[in-house]
Amino acid sequence: MSRIRATYRIETPDEPEHAAEAIANEQSSGTFVEISTETDGLAERHGATVESITELEVVDEPSLPGSAPPAGAAESPTYTRAEVDLSYPVGNIGTSLQNLMTLIAGNLFVLKELSGVRLVDLSLPEEFAAAQPGPQFGIEGTRELLGVHDRPIIGSIIKPSVGLSPEETGDVVETLVEAGVDFIKDDELIASPPYSRVEDRIAEVMDPIHRHEAETGKTVMYACNVTGDVDEMLERHDAVKEAGGNCLMVSLRSVGLAGVQKLREESDLPIHGHRNGWGALSRCPQLGFSYEAWQKLWRLAGVDHLHVSGIRNKFTESDESVVSSAIECQTPIASDDDTVMPVFSSAQWAGQAHDTYESVGNTDLMYLAGGGIHGHPDGPRAGVAHLKQGWEAAMKGVPLDEYAETHDELRTAIEYYGDHD
Amino acid sequence: MSRIRATYRIETPDEPEHAAEAIANEQSSGTFVEISTETDGLAERHGATVESITELEVVDEPSLPGSAPPAGAAESPTYTRAEVDLSYPVGNIGTSLQNLMTLIAGNLFVLKELSGVRLVDLSLPEEFAAAQPGPQFGIEGTRELLGVHDRPIIGSIIKPSVGLSPEETGDVVETLVEAGVDFIKDDELIASPPYSRVEDRIAEVMDPIHRHEAETGKTVMYACNVTGDVDEMLERHDAVKEAGGNCLMVSLRSVGLAGVQKLREESDLPIHGHRNGWGALSRCPQLGFSYEAWQKLWRLAGVDHLHVSGIRNKFTESDESVVSSAIECQTPIASDDDTVMPVFSSAQWAGQAHDTYESVGNTDLMYLAGGGIHGHPDGPRAGVAHLKQGWEAAMKGVPLDEYAETHDELRTAIEYYGDHD
Repeated sequence: MSRIRATYRIETPDEPEHAAEAIANEQSSGTFVEISTETDGLAERHGATVESITELEVVDEPSLPGSAPPAGAAESPTYTRAEVDLSYPVGNIGTSLQNLMTLIAGNLFVLKELSGVRLVDLSLPEEFAAAQPGPQFGIEGTRELLGVHDRPIIGSIIKPSVGLSPEETGDVVETLVEAGVDFIKDDELIASPPYSRVEDRIAEVMDPIHRHEAETGKTVMYACNVTGDVDEMLERHDAVKEAGGNCLMVSLRSVGLAGVQKLREESDLPIHGHRNGWGALSRCPQLGFSYEAWQKLWRLAGVDHLHVSGIRNKFTESDESVVSSAIECQTPIASDDDTVMPVFSSAQWAGQAHDTYESVGNTDLMYLAGGGIHGHPDGPRAGVAHLKQGWEAAMKGVPLDEYAETHDELRTAIEYYGDHD
Repeated sequence: MSRIRATYRIETPDEPEHAAEAIANEQSSGTFVEISTETDGLAERHGATVESITELEVVDEPSLPGSAPPAGAAESPTYTRAEVDLSYPVGNIGTSLQNLMTLIAGNLFVLKELSGVRLVDLSLPEEFAAAQPGPQFGIEGTRELLGVHDRPIIGSIIKPSVGLSPEETGDVVETLVEAGVDFIKDDELIASPPYSRVEDRIAEVMDPIHRHEAETGKTVMYACNVTGDVDEMLERHDAVKEAGGNCLMVSLRSVGLAGVQKLREESDLPIHGHRNGWGALSRCPQLGFSYEAWQKLWRLAGVDHLHVSGIRNKFTESDESVVSSAIECQTPIASDDDTVMPVFSSAQWAGQAHDTYESVGNTDLMYLAGGGIHGHPDGPRAGVAHLKQGWEAAMKGVPLDEYAETHDELRTAIEYYGDHD
């Protein structure tokens, strides 16, 4: 039978072999005393298997509280880190994405044998991945909707994030559209509050987008934040579609895997996945999830775009981690159809274009700037222009400063944003 | 306007005031440069407010990577811990439970001003709580369905957790029912896999339960694990109900807030909430969530029972934390109607009854034993009997050993399980 493989970075006061077996046992048939109905044949068909163990460094202090050394251990135990590879029979869960989460990331986080445990990789049988909704549009579908094929999708966030009325939001969108963006998204802090309900906001936002399209032929995508309960999201989907809208945004962790999957199954529009709150699952290096593993669940549930922060972002994530996340979003799980657009944002301006292009190796990404567009000294139009110029320079292999000699908006941006870096 | 209050335990290389303001700013209208559309009036209506700051200890090393001391700070910064209380206008999110999650637990986890950040408490305006589905049965509803009012609900878990056919599951249930349990649940690792689909399993499980009820008049509750996508859960709800089933189990983190809320809205049955994977959000003391805060979201979404681990559990959680979690589940958010049954499990036998009763202060709880029933040397019937005896002793204030002098099953259990403690 095909097997699901999950790789964990663990830390243990015990032998790594014992710790890995503890995970295997807990995630297939654990209890604290032997019980009569458990049989060897059953364990063979349904048991988890420790496939490999790679020992890493040994540390003197446990990273997480609550672990216990094995009985009879030395009084001052050391803690061994290791990468362990486990496999689970796919038949234990059928093709259920929700139960995959329980299988690979359930009780194991609180095992006493572990003073550190992080899911760092996940490999799924092709038939499991193929049975999931997966992204409906992904990289190519998004490019086709926008008619942008040879550079990143340049986008912006509506600011301020909270408090704008639908009419004021429409005005900000009009400014951004005229400034030349490809893509606009709501902030994660606004979905459908009383002061700006989706059904009111979408009309005000799509009006300038449609006018611009009629005048110029250019489509701008607006990711409308429809985060809510299942019925609300489906109603908002219909309202967005009816108003000629072209993208939905969802706060993934607020909604959860079942809600996102349901939206995907009923949706005709791309889903822009926001990962706010992700830090709670990832920021402790010895706990939680790597983005490489975690993002697979959301892609299979049907998200088309996934946030990855950005190089030299204003938050805590390292550039190395950002780049690795982005490349992983572009890497097939079971087929090219399940790749998604990585979304770069957070303190982005042209200053990160070269490094982003060089490290990711292509332009199949969204590059969003809030302050980097709204805050350009010469206004949003110059903000968008400088971003495009920065990316042109990166793609042509021309240094940013050199390109700025003949591009005013870029030169001004370097003078202004350069001080903020 | 009413305000949502959230309390965070933070750690910062900066002044706690600055760090708290950084959270307030990020969770209301953050960007990295000042932008023209932001106005003071808007900030007043929609801004988050720092209500109070209580400084705690100062440490030399950051708990989490990625934080940055303020410009001009000493070369070896210290890290100040503090409890900070923030408030957000409820109008920023209306009555949306999903957007509450984004508001109180979004990007703030990755702020550079913070080397530690944990949501430790949450206080919601009554009108917000009242607008949520909330538990349909809760403590009283569950007691009424079972006809058990004067002691804890005694329950068990079907073991082994994976691999049993529907018929074999029915046999285990028959044994447990005859042994005298009030409640039986599936393991979180089995929902509806190909080898035991809910629609097949429920018939085999409810048959002995219904026969027992016809013979004795006693109702046994079976929490059938329906975890899956939204449509699957609703279909399984109907299958369970049609077969005369009386409870659903859901792996909360696998399904998410929107999926659980949808199930609650469509369900006629109690929802038994399993928190597997919770450790990923909680085990690092300076990151994530306290259960006191986190469990409120799931109660408002409509869960009736919530797992809290158990005293002297086999996992990493401290007894103090377990007890605090349980008491919090029994504490109203907006009204008595939103309290839920805390579910004690993990290595439980009569040995923890006294401490549980004394620390929780009542019997409004479920007390589940896997090995503590299946593994009793004299069989499951003796396993259940010993648990009831242990609780009788606790409620009467009689020491366990003394009560065991006149109760054989308890005496045997003390001899057997006492060695495993």
